[in-house]
Amino acid sequence: MKLLEDRIRKDGVVKEGHILKVDGFLNHQMDVELFDQMGKEFKRLFADAPINKILTIEASGIGIACVVAQSFHVPVVFAKKAKSLNIDGEVYASKVESFTHKRVYDIIVSKKYLNPGDHVLVIDDFLANGCAVMGLIDLINASGATLEGVGIAVEKGFQQGGKMIRDKGIHLESLAIVDDMDDATGEIFFREQ
Amino acid sequence: MKLLEDRIRKDGVVKEGHILKVDGFLNHQMDVELFDQMGKEFKRLFADAPINKILTIEASGIGIACVVAQSFHVPVVFAKKAKSLNIDGEVYASKVESFTHKRVYDIIVSKKYLNPGDHVLVIDDFLANGCAVMGLIDLINASGATLEGVGIAVEKGFQQGGKMIRDKGIHLESLAIVDDMDDATGEIFFREQ
Repeated sequence: MKLLEDRIRKDGVVKEGHILKVDGFLNHQMDVELFDQMGKEFKRLFADAPINKILTIEASGIGIACVVAQSFHVPVVFAKKAKSLNIDGEVYASKVESFTHKRVYDIIVSKKYLNPGDHVLVIDDFLANGCAVMGLIDLINASGATLEGVGIAVEKGFQQGGKMIRDKGIHLESLAIVDDMDDATGEIFFREQ
Repeated sequence: MKLLEDRIRKDGVVKEGHILKVDGFLNHQMDVELFDQMGKEFKRLFADAPINKILTIEASGIGIACVVAQSFHVPVVFAKKAKSLNIDGEVYASKVESFTHKRVYDIIVSKKYLNPGDHVLVIDDFLANGCAVMGLIDLINASGATLEGVGIAVEKGFQQGGKMIRDKGIHLESLAIVDDMDDATGEIFFREQ
């Protein structure tokens, strides 16, 4: 998606260790008008899928998911990273290893909000090693719901998550795929799509 | 806001200990079409304020804030609850006591995304003891930005947060104020607004 690639080139910051910071518009400060354009693009890319629910994970996936959901006219469910006293006991759970925080955590969704009749689109801001998305797919599989696809804002094409998910035959759409970055020059190289 | 009150009556669940569960449409599964109506109502209520940014706190505030922000055509910044390795060192920080999780945590916002020229609307899903909102106001004050007001989906009118904030002369708008609940009958009593 050219609009997103242009924005990443303009406002993304490349740091040592293949870190791409997009917190000015994607995951700390959030440009909701950009999210709306991303939602329309996901709607085009998943036009044929009978999606009735969007699943994401706290925290930075929630904003994108909620704006994208407006293009699909469906509710959003977000997986929580720790058990809250406000969640009923009956939950689906999976384990996720965080690249950013260097730890393993549980993700949970109330069984009330994922059902066998659901057709689910997974939305997240970033795809790197794929652990968060695989955890969300675990929850969907445990519920008996149907996974219709995965929509990602920014995929790090040089990590294995994208290949792993595509190799499973899952319909994955990443609006921008970063294949390489140069922290000396700040250059970002996108995959042709 | 009658639409929200009706939805709380229909889908909210009253539990012992003055707990109101609205996780079917507000803070676990999220009805983004309802959020859009809430956004239009906040826009009406804060029509005269020169708001250029919305500030919220992860996780359950983010979805509402992002959809509401579309009515204001402004970006959203969300305060994070723990220091992430992906955040630059330069942050504003405050402490918040969580009623739900029974602990004290730090909230932080990058100094890049709150500035003296900003006119900020705080948005959150719930207002109870007011600690989260007061923490966000701390961050705004530390940055030199102007607080234009606070918009809340559901205020627990029987806790002190709403009174505390209004007593400071802050423009607070809660779309539904629950003054009492009966966990035996499930009845919910809203304040006339």
